[in-house]
Amino acid sequence: MNAPDDKLAHLLALTREPFPASTKGRIAGSRADIQVPVRDVALTNGEVVSLYDTSGPYTDPAAPIDVRRGLPDVRGLWIAERGDTEAYDGRLRHILDDGGKHEDRDQARIDRLRAEAAGLQRTPRRAKSGANVTQMHYARRGIVTPEMEYVALRENGRREWMADYLAHEERARRVRGNPMGAQIPRVITPEFVRDEVARGRAIIPANINHPEVEPMAIGRNFRVKINANIGNSAVTSSIEEEVEKLVWAIRWGADNVMDLSTGRNIHTTRDWIVRNSPVPIGTVPIYQALEKVGGVAEDLTWDIFRDTLIEQAEQGVDYFTIHAGLRLPFIHLTADRMTGIVSRGGSIMAKWCIAHHKESFLYERFEDICDIMKQYDVSFSLGDGLRPGSGADANDEAQFAELRTLGELTQVAWKHDVQTMIEGPGHVPMHLIQSNMDEQLKHCHEAPFYTLGPLTIDIAPGYDHIASAVGAAMIGWMGTAMLCYVTPKEHLGLPDRDDVKQGIVAYKIAAHAADVAKGFPGARARDDALSKARFEFRWQDQFNLGLDPDTARDFHDETLPKDSSKEAHFCSMCGPKFCSMKITQEVRAFAAENGLAEDEAIAQGMAGKSAEFKAAGGAFYLPIVPAGASTPTPAAAPDA
Amino acid sequence: MNAPDDKLAHLLALTREPFPASTKGRIAGSRADIQVPVRDVALTNGEVVSLYDTSGPYTDPAAPIDVRRGLPDVRGLWIAERGDTEAYDGRLRHILDDGGKHEDRDQARIDRLRAEAAGLQRTPRRAKSGANVTQMHYARRGIVTPEMEYVALRENGRREWMADYLAHEERARRVRGNPMGAQIPRVITPEFVRDEVARGRAIIPANINHPEVEPMAIGRNFRVKINANIGNSAVTSSIEEEVEKLVWAIRWGADNVMDLSTGRNIHTTRDWIVRNSPVPIGTVPIYQALEKVGGVAEDLTWDIFRDTLIEQAEQGVDYFTIHAGLRLPFIHLTADRMTGIVSRGGSIMAKWCIAHHKESFLYERFEDICDIMKQYDVSFSLGDGLRPGSGADANDEAQFAELRTLGELTQVAWKHDVQTMIEGPGHVPMHLIQSNMDEQLKHCHEAPFYTLGPLTIDIAPGYDHIASAVGAAMIGWMGTAMLCYVTPKEHLGLPDRDDVKQGIVAYKIAAHAADVAKGFPGARARDDALSKARFEFRWQDQFNLGLDPDTARDFHDETLPKDSSKEAHFCSMCGPKFCSMKITQEVRAFAAENGLAEDEAIAQGMAGKSAEFKAAGGAFYLPIVPAGASTPTPAAAPDA
Repeated sequence: MNAPDDKLAHLLALTREPFPASTKGRIAGSRADIQVPVRDVALTNGEVVSLYDTSGPYTDPAAPIDVRRGLPDVRGLWIAERGDTEAYDGRLRHILDDGGKHEDRDQARIDRLRAEAAGLQRTPRRAKSGANVTQMHYARRGIVTPEMEYVALRENGRREWMADYLAHEERARRVRGNPMGAQIPRVITPEFVRDEVARGRAIIPANINHPEVEPMAIGRNFRVKINANIGNSAVTSSIEEEVEKLVWAIRWGADNVMDLSTGRNIHTTRDWIVRNSPVPIGTVPIYQALEKVGGVAEDLTWDIFRDTLIEQAEQGVDYFTIHAGLRLPFIHLTADRMTGIVSRGGSIMAKWCIAHHKESFLYERFEDICDIMKQYDVSFSLGDGLRPGSGADANDEAQFAELRTLGELTQVAWKHDVQTMIEGPGHVPMHLIQSNMDEQLKHCHEAPFYTLGPLTIDIAPGYDHIASAVGAAMIGWMGTAMLCYVTPKEHLGLPDRDDVKQGIVAYKIAAHAADVAKGFPGARARDDALSKARFEFRWQDQFNLGLDPDTARDFHDETLPKDSSKEAHFCSMCGPKFCSMKITQEVRAFAAENGLAEDEAIAQGMAGKSAEFKAAGGAFYLPIVPAGASTPTPAAAPDA
Repeated sequence: MNAPDDKLAHLLALTREPFPASTKGRIAGSRADIQVPVRDVALTNGEVVSLYDTSGPYTDPAAPIDVRRGLPDVRGLWIAERGDTEAYDGRLRHILDDGGKHEDRDQARIDRLRAEAAGLQRTPRRAKSGANVTQMHYARRGIVTPEMEYVALRENGRREWMADYLAHEERARRVRGNPMGAQIPRVITPEFVRDEVARGRAIIPANINHPEVEPMAIGRNFRVKINANIGNSAVTSSIEEEVEKLVWAIRWGADNVMDLSTGRNIHTTRDWIVRNSPVPIGTVPIYQALEKVGGVAEDLTWDIFRDTLIEQAEQGVDYFTIHAGLRLPFIHLTADRMTGIVSRGGSIMAKWCIAHHKESFLYERFEDICDIMKQYDVSFSLGDGLRPGSGADANDEAQFAELRTLGELTQVAWKHDVQTMIEGPGHVPMHLIQSNMDEQLKHCHEAPFYTLGPLTIDIAPGYDHIASAVGAAMIGWMGTAMLCYVTPKEHLGLPDRDDVKQGIVAYKIAAHAADVAKGFPGARARDDALSKARFEFRWQDQFNLGLDPDTARDFHDETLPKDSSKEAHFCSMCGPKFCSMKITQEVRAFAAENGLAEDEAIAQGMAGKSAEFKAAGGAFYLPIVPAGASTPTPAAAPDA
């Protein structure tokens, strides 16, 4: 741990700048405290493009942020108004929660940790006796919660700016997408959200102890979401770094973040992350439970696990990965696999089952777990402990036996109105991806699918974000609701800040490609706005509308660094003489002027127009280099 | 230009090291001079994995290489033996070929260029009067050329090493792939290659004036290939850099390279590239023709174009991109497009057509072009001048009208036995990719498809190699034979050496994912070998079997730099206590030992075995850190 002063300095270095030319906008809901954030990008032609925004208050320079106290509430009043929860003392804290083992040796460290996190402590709430406080429970009773309205507004975004683009979709129907069985309305209403949550086809991960969250939905009839994993390690990162990683991840577009911290300080790290997170936070509670038993899987007990669930539910974790589908009878199905069991949670539970020769306590206690979840509205992310670790093991009986069990557990969870999503692989060659989606839809009753990639090949260590973005884009199109990112360090090492960004951008590409392909209304509008900017040589707009304006600008500057080039009607690939975009604009103007748009006249050749053109069109190749611009000549351009 | 000494120093710096643990192997054919290269990777467990190798003699330390003299012949004798070609004086060189305009001003530069390239000059050959020397012509007469045998051996690779993996494919049929209509035999025979070439479903780009080429095939029933673009620019690169870029591109796996040089020194640059290239070289001759008329498209003439074709054919260019399908009546179809005409070649021809109000001379003179092609065996790459430049324009009438024309021209080319492939887009959302492939197959009679990406979205400037790798993988699976790479600099600037590598690796991922999905026999063996190495903690083998061993090793070293970690039975993601791979191995051993593979016994629980396990299995969590290894603890691991 650093000294407090160092920590403060580090935290003050949080990434807080807005994106270039961007301001935080708000879409107002039916009540004053529903204010849905959007990123409004001002273009140089006076238009404003409004984008889905995951970055929270951190990109709002007006927001007062003190990470030692956490973010302001978004949902506190909504939760209170429902009148079905109560504050209570909560579970007693134990030094084991932060990896302490010996009072004498660890107490001082833990006291310091707790003092530093003092401003982040909240009195926990839970459902009043007999109550059920899940969004699914409300939905099934016909209640449209403010969370549901928030989600509806957020999914639609500002529709006004994209009217022209939506009209283009109407004209050119071929670009409207193929929903592959999804049923996406042209406008998402709060009632539609309620219905999707009620039938289990979407979840809104939102623990009542995480009122800071800006509600979002995970479901195949909504925008495809992405998850980024972070997590501290005693060796390689600190709590401060994890908070910055969170802010960094949501800046680039992570819709959800999983805190996979292990080792020491695990409880306090979570306080920092949850209190400062506007996006839902997921965890894998078995990791912390294992820490509490010194890393010895066979020493895990239901009591320790249960205590850990309550500990994390009180802190505000929004969803738990629980590998309850890995049953004892399935373990031997992995014996002939190329790469056995590769899920950490899965291998811990496999070990426990074999050591005790007993069925998994997660499976046997599943209804007890549901009882906890519904008191806090923690969602299930039912873990795929038997997911394939290589293409060779994809879609085997071990994987699908577990998947069918996850479907069975989904129905148990739904009996308790607990929101549920299903985790999926992993490593799957392209030709086996569709059947993953089909099997999941068939056996899990349309509960949202949440896949890790999948990686389409195994030979790309160092580039697995790309090998998996291919599979992620495809399965997102086919119906997966959330894509868990993979970084370039997958299989090799711990992702650093840049790896996190590389992984997120690759997955924003996959998720957006899926939204465009499945025809989410308006998804294409951003592409059209950028393409239009590209065609009209509005370089700044092209950068600012991209997923990563900084990198786009840097790349452009490497070849044409001068500011004047940003307005130049050519680019570095082809240079001023050769620009095909510019030629096209001229061709178009000429065609309009000369009535060339009439097929037959054109087909006949109209040689008589030629001289006229020669006179009028001599300007085509006049030098168009602005004063002071460099004059590159063409090279490795993509005209293959 | 640098001084000759500088140039020599630069050329000596060519990337010449073999890949780690790799040696150049040879598969011997039916005659002594058929020696097909492979990369044999020695694993630490004594196995040897043999990989398809595009890198030429540059990765063979024993090969004497002098770029001033060019590579040794591979095919010289085969061509001579056929007895249907003759050496001739060739076209007279002109200073315009190298961008010279004024004899007094440019002659000295051009004399120096020519002197430096003196060792690269060859007497050109062409077909004897009335002869046709294309591989297609031979194939249709039932002749299996050495080139065809070479290709067959190359596509198969060494089958011996992959026997176990092939056997696994037989057992686990689900992993065998879905050919999507391809008809790939289990073993590629020379006769199969002949038949594919004869029916036009594959091409072997191999100009008789490029005897240095190591023959390769482009066709949907062969491995999916990739193309990398290079090309000099007077401002940003030199001839020496282009030769190094060629060597660099084939090192990372480019099967073909297009030289898109423009500006000055264009002829001599091509001499350097072709003479030193073991892979087929493609060009877009209209670029050089345009240089010769000072960049004024409307001044282009058939004579200038024809002269350029002969100039480049004599130098040994293996395929020409010719935008002969962009007809005058199609131009107005682009008027309503979001991004008009984005192909450089396409916009040059559109401009010419409008200026003269005449049909394209490329279309009208197409049979004359065929007459030239068949004298040298230059293959057509029929260009898609009207490809979409944005998702909004994908699959529109302009694009498909041109595609149908390319199909019509394919049949003209085939009448002359000229090998032909068809270029494709570009920018296509996922849901419109399949119909691109369907339309191409339908209208172009299964001539190989050669696509640029396609990019699935438009909002990823700086990451378009990823946005397009998604589309490339999919269309490769569906039947595209060659994928033209896209670098991270696409739309933004000129790719440098690292961009070229990033683009190639992304496209090797796409091509390999396609091979695996379509079930090319043995393609998965490399994945299996790497997965097995991963599972057995053979870190060096994992790196060396990957697409980029250097990066994989560097990433691993960032977290665990010590050499001892390379044999460690854990990795940095989970650390020594938590390793799921290790746990699985132990679970497997235990399962075998205790007969746990019998379903029913397991399902019953067998509590009696528990104590036994406790005694036997206590070693599971013994510290396994080798002396001297660091001891990371788990963090951001991908267990979502």
